[in-house]
Amino acid sequence: MKNFLNNIREKKPLIHCITNYVTANDVANSLIGVGASPIMADEFEEVSDITKISNALLVNLGTLNLRTIKSMKLALKTANENNIITVLDPVGVGASGIRNKTAIELIENFKFSVIRGNISEIKFLNGEDGVVKGVDANLADLNDDLNNKVRIAKSLSKKTGAVVMISGKIDVISDCENSYICKNGTSMMSDVSGSGCMLGGIVAAFCAANDENLKASLMAVGLMGLAGEFARGGSVLSAIGNFTFKNNLIDEIYLMDDEKLQNGIKIEKFY
Amino acid sequence: MKNFLNNIREKKPLIHCITNYVTANDVANSLIGVGASPIMADEFEEVSDITKISNALLVNLGTLNLRTIKSMKLALKTANENNIITVLDPVGVGASGIRNKTAIELIENFKFSVIRGNISEIKFLNGEDGVVKGVDANLADLNDDLNNKVRIAKSLSKKTGAVVMISGKIDVISDCENSYICKNGTSMMSDVSGSGCMLGGIVAAFCAANDENLKASLMAVGLMGLAGEFARGGSVLSAIGNFTFKNNLIDEIYLMDDEKLQNGIKIEKFY
Amino acid sequence: MKNFLNNIREKKPLIHCITNYVTANDVANSLIGVGASPIMADEFEEVSDITKISNALLVNLGTLNLRTIKSMKLALKTANENNIITVLDPVGVGASGIRNKTAIELIENFKFSVIRGNISEIKFLNGEDGVVKGVDANLADLNDDLNNKVRIAKSLSKKTGAVVMISGKIDVISDCENSYICKNGTSMMSDVSGSGCMLGGIVAAFCAANDENLKASLMAVGLMGLAGEFARGGSVLSAIGNFTFKNNLIDEIYLMDDEKLQNGIKIEKFY
Repeated sequence: MKNFLNNIREKKPLIHCITNYVTANDVANSLIGVGASPIMADEFEEVSDITKISNALLVNLGTLNLRTIKSMKLALKTANENNIITVLDPVGVGASGIRNKTAIELIENFKFSVIRGNISEIKFLNGEDGVVKGVDANLADLNDDLNNKVRIAKSLSKKTGAVVMISGKIDVISDCENSYICKNGTSMMSDVSGSGCMLGGIVAAFCAANDENLKASLMAVGLMGLAGEFARGGSVLSAIGNFTFKNNLIDEIYLMDDEKLQNGIKIEKFY
Repeated sequence: MKNFLNNIREKKPLIHCITNYVTANDVANSLIGVGASPIMADEFEEVSDITKISNALLVNLGTLNLRTIKSMKLALKTANENNIITVLDPVGVGASGIRNKTAIELIENFKFSVIRGNISEIKFLNGEDGVVKGVDANLADLNDDLNNKVRIAKSLSKKTGAVVMISGKIDVISDCENSYICKNGTSMMSDVSGSGCMLGGIVAAFCAANDENLKASLMAVGLMGLAGEFARGGSVLSAIGNFTFKNNLIDEIYLMDDEKLQNGIKIEKFY
Repeated sequence: MKNFLNNIREKKPLIHCITNYVTANDVANSLIGVGASPIMADEFEEVSDITKISNALLVNLGTLNLRTIKSMKLALKTANENNIITVLDPVGVGASGIRNKTAIELIENFKFSVIRGNISEIKFLNGEDGVVKGVDANLADLNDDLNNKVRIAKSLSKKTGAVVMISGKIDVISDCENSYICKNGTSMMSDVSGSGCMLGGIVAAFCAANDENLKASLMAVGLMGLAGEFARGGSVLSAIGNFTFKNNLIDEIYLMDDEKLQNGIKIEKFY
């Protein structure tokens, strides 16, 4: 587990992002921060060309529309045919019929390397009850205990073959066999629009430049949480707002290296 | 007038935003700053679902297109049928035929809780002359005296039933009976893309979590201006650029509380 | 060459931007920074109205789609008919069939005042080999020597009549007769999503408010590079991340004046 981040910076993988316009800039700059090269492209006529030259494809459902849904499907088909890493970020699934239908079609018809969402989104994909309130996890779901979250992640992983990642105060990362939790992070992460979207992109970059998707995903989650800790700062005196926190967060992603990451990461196997 | 902001933070209203891609991120983060939960969604097939679970709907005409105009109308219909707060931000109305036509159709066919614009945009909606130059108010309009602005706001309020808000050096807020002015703010507000868009979102959040739209609107305008004053800083020495100012502005929105707001707000009844 | 920037701040030109949603906010705020008034509008039904009242039109191919391609063409037709400044930023050309086809159609059918891109993009437009990797220049192209870059810029200028600008460690700016290089800048420029897009907008503003497109372009390139130097800071100690750098960059654009620009600009005629 020594050179995950450095591998990205050496290989400079191209990450094709079909993502929402709310956080696209933050996703682009955090991808540059880890050493990847982002390209946002959602036109049906070109996504196949773009995916083919990319090392990973990120599909994020925020601000989806009928045009981009078609593009997502074609890009995913192309990625699967060419064994390209695919990451699904099912933003807001549960909140509308079209998001639900789209997310289910995507996981039924395409293979994902990683699926990342909050607990409400992942529960929905796993076919469990839950009322999603917009793009945030609902309170009842947030109170799910860790055992239940791990069960859900593992279950969805078994169904899809993807590494499943549930973002939250404690993150859960699981494939169909092994589960991990990550205790890095800060509560300010949820005061920022797009910290989840950025993580989706970063996971794609880690998987594109490293061999094992589960390990790469663990390091990506750890990096995001650790950068959040650094961004928040240690002192109670340093009251900062959510926007400065977001700026710092992307800066800390850019300034991270494998040594800092190894030293700060708090990931445990979950039995 | 004690707990306007706290009410948002307790109720965490969901704000459905159909807004432009230029400032969507700032709108999202400033909504999180006041304690609301933003969701940007503009696909025709889902806006009705999203509006139904929301506490307010923001319709902002910047970067509109024929697809999103259809979505705006369906979302507004849904909001009106379900008595959900609606805010119109007629960005750039006057600058193109399609914006003019759309804005007029919207105010003729749907009920708005609040309409917020610059003086040129509000004059256009009120059927008065004025040459809009892009998305900024024109100089002649900016020199309109306060009496005239209040007259226009009140007139548009009478026609539409909405609280009407004219942003400017001195903001005017009026319903068909009472008019107020707000003297908070700084000239740097106009050096930032999106300060108006953010205010549109924040007004929606204030109205969603508080009872009276006029009072809620006053507090929203006051908060925005006061956050601008804090963001600018008191010292002439602290020369900052417009982007740092924008960062600070969102930070100060996030760091605001009802006590600071009560103490700093400069709102007067206009007779 | 005394008052290029001041001319923008006095005339406040309206810049119609058909640009990507990834960096639209940064383009808007950097345009405000130099004193221009940005308007982003990409709906076919309104671009003609908007271009007509504008002083320059920026067409940026990032996140293009079939709808916006139609809008770009109509806006360019309107701009050419009305002798309005036009700037082309062929983001990612070479990376997909539709971008290639679009870019070629645009330079064959419309007149551009300025074309700005990285070396790979400009080579593609000039009909030369080169494998574009996403939106970044490829390594082989980056190692092209200066003589070759100048040759390419001049060649494309002869074909199109546009001032051609190749962004890179050393920028090349050429019309069909004279060529210049600009040595301002810092390597951090390429660690930010959108520094090229911002420059595209700023060039449009400089040309809109000043007479000679070549000279105006030189000053715009110099301003961007110099703002980058200021944003980076002089000290090795001041380690900052790419997002703070971007914030500083826009701030320094806003804080620039003609005197600082004259004193710091490093532009040389290339023989």
